[in-house]
Amino acid sequence: MASTAKSTDIRIVRSEALKPKPDPEHLGFGKYFTDHMLLVDYTEEKGWHDARIVPYGPFSLDPSAMVFHYGQTVFEGMKAFKTEDGRILLFRPDRNAARFNISCERLNIPAFDEAFFVESIRTLVEVEKAWVPDAEGSSLYIRPFVIATEAGLGVRPANRYLFSVILSPSGAYYSGGLAPVHIRVEDAYVRSVRGGTGFAKTAGNYAASLKAQVIAKQDHCDQVLWLDGIEQRYIEEVGSMNVFFKVGDEVITPELNGSILDGITRRSVIDLLRSWGIAVTERKISIEELAEAHKNGKLTEAFGTGTAAVISPVGRLSWKQEDMRIGDGTIGELSHRLYDAITGIQTGKVADTFGWNLQV
Amino acid sequence: MASTAKSTDIRIVRSEALKPKPDPEHLGFGKYFTDHMLLVDYTEEKGWHDARIVPYGPFSLDPSAMVFHYGQTVFEGMKAFKTEDGRILLFRPDRNAARFNISCERLNIPAFDEAFFVESIRTLVEVEKAWVPDAEGSSLYIRPFVIATEAGLGVRPANRYLFSVILSPSGAYYSGGLAPVHIRVEDAYVRSVRGGTGFAKTAGNYAASLKAQVIAKQDHCDQVLWLDGIEQRYIEEVGSMNVFFKVGDEVITPELNGSILDGITRRSVIDLLRSWGIAVTERKISIEELAEAHKNGKLTEAFGTGTAAVISPVGRLSWKQEDMRIGDGTIGELSHRLYDAITGIQTGKVADTFGWNLQV
Repeated sequence: MASTAKSTDIRIVRSEALKPKPDPEHLGFGKYFTDHMLLVDYTEEKGWHDARIVPYGPFSLDPSAMVFHYGQTVFEGMKAFKTEDGRILLFRPDRNAARFNISCERLNIPAFDEAFFVESIRTLVEVEKAWVPDAEGSSLYIRPFVIATEAGLGVRPANRYLFSVILSPSGAYYSGGLAPVHIRVEDAYVRSVRGGTGFAKTAGNYAASLKAQVIAKQDHCDQVLWLDGIEQRYIEEVGSMNVFFKVGDEVITPELNGSILDGITRRSVIDLLRSWGIAVTERKISIEELAEAHKNGKLTEAFGTGTAAVISPVGRLSWKQEDMRIGDGTIGELSHRLYDAITGIQTGKVADTFGWNLQV
Repeated sequence: MASTAKSTDIRIVRSEALKPKPDPEHLGFGKYFTDHMLLVDYTEEKGWHDARIVPYGPFSLDPSAMVFHYGQTVFEGMKAFKTEDGRILLFRPDRNAARFNISCERLNIPAFDEAFFVESIRTLVEVEKAWVPDAEGSSLYIRPFVIATEAGLGVRPANRYLFSVILSPSGAYYSGGLAPVHIRVEDAYVRSVRGGTGFAKTAGNYAASLKAQVIAKQDHCDQVLWLDGIEQRYIEEVGSMNVFFKVGDEVITPELNGSILDGITRRSVIDLLRSWGIAVTERKISIEELAEAHKNGKLTEAFGTGTAAVISPVGRLSWKQEDMRIGDGTIGELSHRLYDAITGIQTGKVADTFGWNLQV
């Protein structure tokens, strides 16, 4: 792929009939897709080849395609934002490229050239620039993914893959502005364990999480807080987000242990907090420790971090019979400050002092 | 689905051009597919509907179809055999139907009527009866599976699914007859943990297993022996098979603990052994216990059990620096007896005293 790491190597076949744009007030998340998609094939003989931007349309796959049976697939999630002066910005795409390959390595999927990963996305977003929404909180969600397309039922790594990028104009995650969520601590189902695939962005992790998510909703909670797979004591993630807690003057977050995702928003939050002189510690955090800190009045904020929501403040935490209101149950000061800082950088309203943005 | 649980409710569209049959001497496993496939749709409004047998051909799916991103998919594996007098037999299909729903429940996929599961497969195999091979050790491999087809990137259970059954004439698992395998005990990667999806036949478990399988091959081993995800001490499975050990006069196998598959060949082996007056215990088995039994000369046989291989004798077990030859490294007497008994029943050569076969 190194030899084709230029946008001039991406063949572009433009759609003849462009779709009407959806109502910007009712975009939702991941419901509408743009006119084009990016495709790159992999075969053992040729490696990654034939990068092309073509009209968005269905994949035609043999019923025995390995992705359907053995789940060899990896994805990423990122966003493009429109600034007030009409520029289009990508947020830290190099980090997505690096993580994509970390995931691929775990799933035995051939590596993808990281510079070309970014360049191909930049090119696709440029072709689809009319689709980047500009309403407050909205963005063009970008979904790069790879699937094993080889036909056959032998259990082994495939020798054919399809890399694709699809784009979805998406509305603000919180339609009524930043809102606190109610989290249920899951103590039966487990998302992942060290030695497994928890650090990789792969379909199986999400499949495994659906059951607990449905139970949480039935319990009138918005999300699940996952505990570790070994002792079922240590905090891992919230839903599909990383999680932070403000305890006293310190911010704590679970350390990267092989079973949680190395979130890009997580990294950005750590960098921002440190730049503000706030202590952040990555370490093991037990649910008992949190309950104790809550009882002592030291647990004043909790929030999830992820590409979709950016910052998701936690208002309540339900663990067995305990119902912990975090702070006063509304959005904490630090959560708000982080949300404003990150979305400010992403949309060009705040100086990008870390050099996180890539202009399309 | 209860209302359509009759084969007369399956619409049949016959292929106009039948494929040439592959060379029966070189079938391999899961490489060739028959002329037709079974499809059943699910929507929230209609439930499971429109069961049909149609010419085998590609699926057309939106690039955002949830199966590609969040892995909501479940499968089964079973076989049809041709007897010497030309009858076609299915082996315990009711067990596959029951397990299919157990897997679906874990993955939040709507349940499928179990009687119709069996009836639809029986009907498809009848349509494709000319494809059931009759050479020694060969069979028609049957792959029922369901995939989430709804388009959209929100992380939640899908509201549209496709159930499909495809058929693949497959050769003897061991081309040179039953042969002992060399197993590597995996002590870094983990396949599953209780609270996860290990007991479900879902793609993510197989995706998670590929890396260790590749490492085992590089280490000149045939398969991986998985240890539990919590203590990394207790035996779970061999590759994608259940595993049994003969220690002294007793046969032991890991208990069903939520992280291993409730194998149908496993159940059949337990039933057969007990019918022969041989003690079988389902319990936790540590790798240290096995090493100790090996040292004392008590570990005389080890074998994997699964639909593909039926019985897979283990000749050697490599654990860290230890290289344990099991028995004399060839196929144990009990392994052979079990293989002959099960394949005998499956192919109608041995009386089906348990009532396991269903004639097509």
